[in-house]
Amino acid sequence: MNAFTSKNPDFEQAVRASFARQGAMGLLGAELATVEPGHVEIALRFRPALSQQNGYFHAGITTTIADSAAGYAAYSLFAPGHEVLTVEFKVNLLAPADGERLLAIGAVKKPGRTLTICEFEVIAFKGEKRTTCAFGIATMFCLPARAA
Amino acid sequence: MNAFTSKNPDFEQAVRASFARQGAMGLLGAELATVEPGHVEIALRFRPALSQQNGYFHAGITTTIADSAAGYAAYSLFAPGHEVLTVEFKVNLLAPADGERLLAIGAVKKPGRTLTICEFEVIAFKGEKRTTCAFGIATMFCLPARAA
Amino acid sequence: MNAFTSKNPDFEQAVRASFARQGAMGLLGAELATVEPGHVEIALRFRPALSQQNGYFHAGITTTIADSAAGYAAYSLFAPGHEVLTVEFKVNLLAPADGERLLAIGAVKKPGRTLTICEFEVIAFKGEKRTTCAFGIATMFCLPARAA
Amino acid sequence: MNAFTSKNPDFEQAVRASFARQGAMGLLGAELATVEPGHVEIALRFRPALSQQNGYFHAGITTTIADSAAGYAAYSLFAPGHEVLTVEFKVNLLAPADGERLLAIGAVKKPGRTLTICEFEVIAFKGEKRTTCAFGIATMFCLPARAA
Repeated sequence: MNAFTSKNPDFEQAVRASFARQGAMGLLGAELATVEPGHVEIALRFRPALSQQNGYFHAGITTTIADSAAGYAAYSLFAPGHEVLTVEFKVNLLAPADGERLLAIGAVKKPGRTLTICEFEVIAFKGEKRTTCAFGIATMFCLPARAA
Repeated sequence: MNAFTSKNPDFEQAVRASFARQGAMGLLGAELATVEPGHVEIALRFRPALSQQNGYFHAGITTTIADSAAGYAAYSLFAPGHEVLTVEFKVNLLAPADGERLLAIGAVKKPGRTLTICEFEVIAFKGEKRTTCAFGIATMFCLPARAA
Repeated sequence: MNAFTSKNPDFEQAVRASFARQGAMGLLGAELATVEPGHVEIALRFRPALSQQNGYFHAGITTTIADSAAGYAAYSLFAPGHEVLTVEFKVNLLAPADGERLLAIGAVKKPGRTLTICEFEVIAFKGEKRTTCAFGIATMFCLPARAA
Repeated sequence: MNAFTSKNPDFEQAVRASFARQGAMGLLGAELATVEPGHVEIALRFRPALSQQNGYFHAGITTTIADSAAGYAAYSLFAPGHEVLTVEFKVNLLAPADGERLLAIGAVKKPGRTLTICEFEVIAFKGEKRTTCAFGIATMFCLPARAA
């Protein structure tokens, strides 16, 4: 894993404030577990309202926290006064997201002035067992906040 | 758009029953708008609980209904006794998902015995204006239900 | 298919000149078949040097002309003095690329100042038969030429 | 990196024999550098015939060896009598592929009976400098050879 330096001395506060404004994270019950420069983790406890038809976490829900983790991993490096937008991402669902909770890990692979490329992985925890249930790549856009 | 024939005479009922079992669709408030062989549309009204940090629909939420629309487009063609799993998908977010409601359209591009490839598009409706805010490609797996 | 207007009155000449500088297109024997604003087609005749292990076109070769078609579809819209770079793409190989020739069709889905999103499709021609053997989505970057 | 066991005691010979049948690898001048269970590396020296319009390796060429490396990483695990097909892949081009040679590294992330998911990365070597110029994810299909 690479080590990155943020252009924002208050990056953690900036990430937490933005996360708190995401209604969707509240609806799901997602929590910001780790905020480091270029590395963000989001945790989510299972409940039936997050399920697909067989009782596992819905792939879209798994993907939602993965997209947020990747987006905030990018955002954590940005200078103050900028916003992050997801340009695109690709996800492979490797196994059913079966567990009491998920942890989505977003990490910057390549920072850039305009585009930041991130990797992400989602791990399902069931008792003692850890299963990587999703992983992917996301392209993030850094936008001056006045344009957002 | 291609025309497909389902292997399930009760495909619409099968799709609706499976959709009703997805807790996540209920949590979001998503509705099954159209169910045709190889073509499914899902509608979602905006509310702040579905937002990202700037007040638009969260990209993950947009993607969640797109993934479901694509999955059910594939599932609508399957013979009875089979389940659908998302292998992977890729989505480009073309514009902020800004509107009163979203419509996710999933359509089969290439059906297959094991894998079915789908396209999807999500349209945001704001007053008179329609904006394609996302589009992508998904690979779906057809699994005998006993193995699911 | 959308209709687009190029910012370059000499867009066709610009595309043809850039294509001619791509050594890889010459190595493959690819030809620029159609150049319209936001829409470019590239043709490629089969020969064994383009094959994978079973005698079809290699997926990478199929993808190479698809990437070029998409890139030039974007580039055809750019103002003079800009270059195109592929940020990322995703391709599904729908069927073996079995035929005497391939046609790769690249088309702009959403133009933008910095990023242009394209769709592409590759068709294999075998006698009277046409098979879509690949399709995908590409994100292209518009770069001032001095920075290239 | 995970360690995998091949179902084919002669996996290296099987990979090398299949690689030798790929006309496209010969056309490019690509060489099989490393063959381990679930991990394959392919090397390619630069020459102008492999270039895009600015003199770097063409993104399609970079991607072609990456697809082959990922495909053979999957294939190296298969039981005798099976073929590998690329279902789909996604690649991000992180930097210009500027160098005297490329090394494409394909590695299995998750093996499976039908589908094997792989990661890949391409490194450009220029003098002492190493640059990761591409990385991505590929979904591979295991097909009984009689059906190929």
